[in-house]
Amino acid sequence: MMKYYYDLMSQPSRACYIFLKKNKIPFTPCPLRITKGEHRSEEYTKINPFQLVPAIEHNGFNLTESVAILRYLCREFPHVGEEWYPSDSKIQARIDEYMEWQHLNTRMQLAMYFQTKFIIPKMTGTEPDMKTVERSQDRMETILDQFEEIWLDNRPYVAGDKITVADIVAICELEQPSMAGYDVTEGRPKLAEYMKRVKKHLQPEYDEAFEQVYRVRGRFWGGENAPHSKL
Amino acid sequence: MMKYYYDLMSQPSRACYIFLKKNKIPFTPCPLRITKGEHRSEEYTKINPFQLVPAIEHNGFNLTESVAILRYLCREFPHVGEEWYPSDSKIQARIDEYMEWQHLNTRMQLAMYFQTKFIIPKMTGTEPDMKTVERSQDRMETILDQFEEIWLDNRPYVAGDKITVADIVAICELEQPSMAGYDVTEGRPKLAEYMKRVKKHLQPEYDEAFEQVYRVRGRFWGGENAPHSKL
Repeated sequence: MMKYYYDLMSQPSRACYIFLKKNKIPFTPCPLRITKGEHRSEEYTKINPFQLVPAIEHNGFNLTESVAILRYLCREFPHVGEEWYPSDSKIQARIDEYMEWQHLNTRMQLAMYFQTKFIIPKMTGTEPDMKTVERSQDRMETILDQFEEIWLDNRPYVAGDKITVADIVAICELEQPSMAGYDVTEGRPKLAEYMKRVKKHLQPEYDEAFEQVYRVRGRFWGGENAPHSKL
Repeated sequence: MMKYYYDLMSQPSRACYIFLKKNKIPFTPCPLRITKGEHRSEEYTKINPFQLVPAIEHNGFNLTESVAILRYLCREFPHVGEEWYPSDSKIQARIDEYMEWQHLNTRMQLAMYFQTKFIIPKMTGTEPDMKTVERSQDRMETILDQFEEIWLDNRPYVAGDKITVADIVAICELEQPSMAGYDVTEGRPKLAEYMKRVKKHLQPEYDEAFEQVYRVRGRFWGGENAPHSKL
């Protein structure tokens, strides 16, 4: 049985979790709490020497990096591969292109905003440094606009007409700023429609994976002004 | 005929260039000079709306992101695939793992050091801000140590016993700080041996792709103290 190590507060952990559940790939859940430092334990360091989540252990083979894990799962469980990562070379190339692009863009900039606006202030018990937050927000908004204008240019999903693994990777990052009170869909109608579309396709596993995210959002930004409250 | 858009001062451009040349994949070279802003032209923006290099145009199909390009080439030109990106699922997973890991690590941190120590001062005609340089250097050294201790732990190449596409991606980033006068091999004997090994395997295409890098290195850090002078 494959072991899956994850923390559902981490975007890539959620992406692999949704993928595993959606495709009914059997696994032993091994949740870790990053806030408790459990990813730094001696035991987990043997699984992932970089001390990051997610990771899998499959028949004695350890693998880290969510995108590599998703590709591996598509190969090892071929009943899921064709739907989420089609064998057509050009579609695969477009999926890969997004999954490579996102590291330094959606992944990095949205996470950075979340950290400067929310995580660092909460952990240190201080007010956010507004100059740093503004800088992160600028960078994040450039990326969000590129996502809407370039990746969603005349296509309902990142790689074309159908949902693929690239959309799972994308939406897990796109939800993150909402925990810091920022609604990425505001003023971005194509992005709003896209998120609704992807989310609907991924239910009910999506809501299960996002339970903790919803809880944080409700606690800090609840009520009528909650980001994505209408999604 | 495939068109290849690149600037050999860019690490990922060099990686794809070496791969194309080494495997005798025919292409029309379309060099762009980033310092002249040629990547921002209207014409090139149609090829790559993100205005970055490298990119390819193959039978009317445009593709960006070096890692996605390398995988695409392995599929489209199967005579090269097995050697550089073997079909074995676990080896492929290990290669993917590195190629995903590198974005926020070797790629980002080494490039950041190069920018703060060299590019920004040269472009603005000012002295490097030593506090920023020190911070970048710390981050870069953490990554270089991880590369040596984790990626090169008991294996001659990143993905195991044989050279793969992951090593081409790796070495093109590892050479970059030398242009800012920093020798990544200093105090890292395993990394030094690794770089020698990979470089040797990639000759003579390697030296051809690095001609401009060598020239910059020679001009600013020439003589006996040149980084990598012994490689």
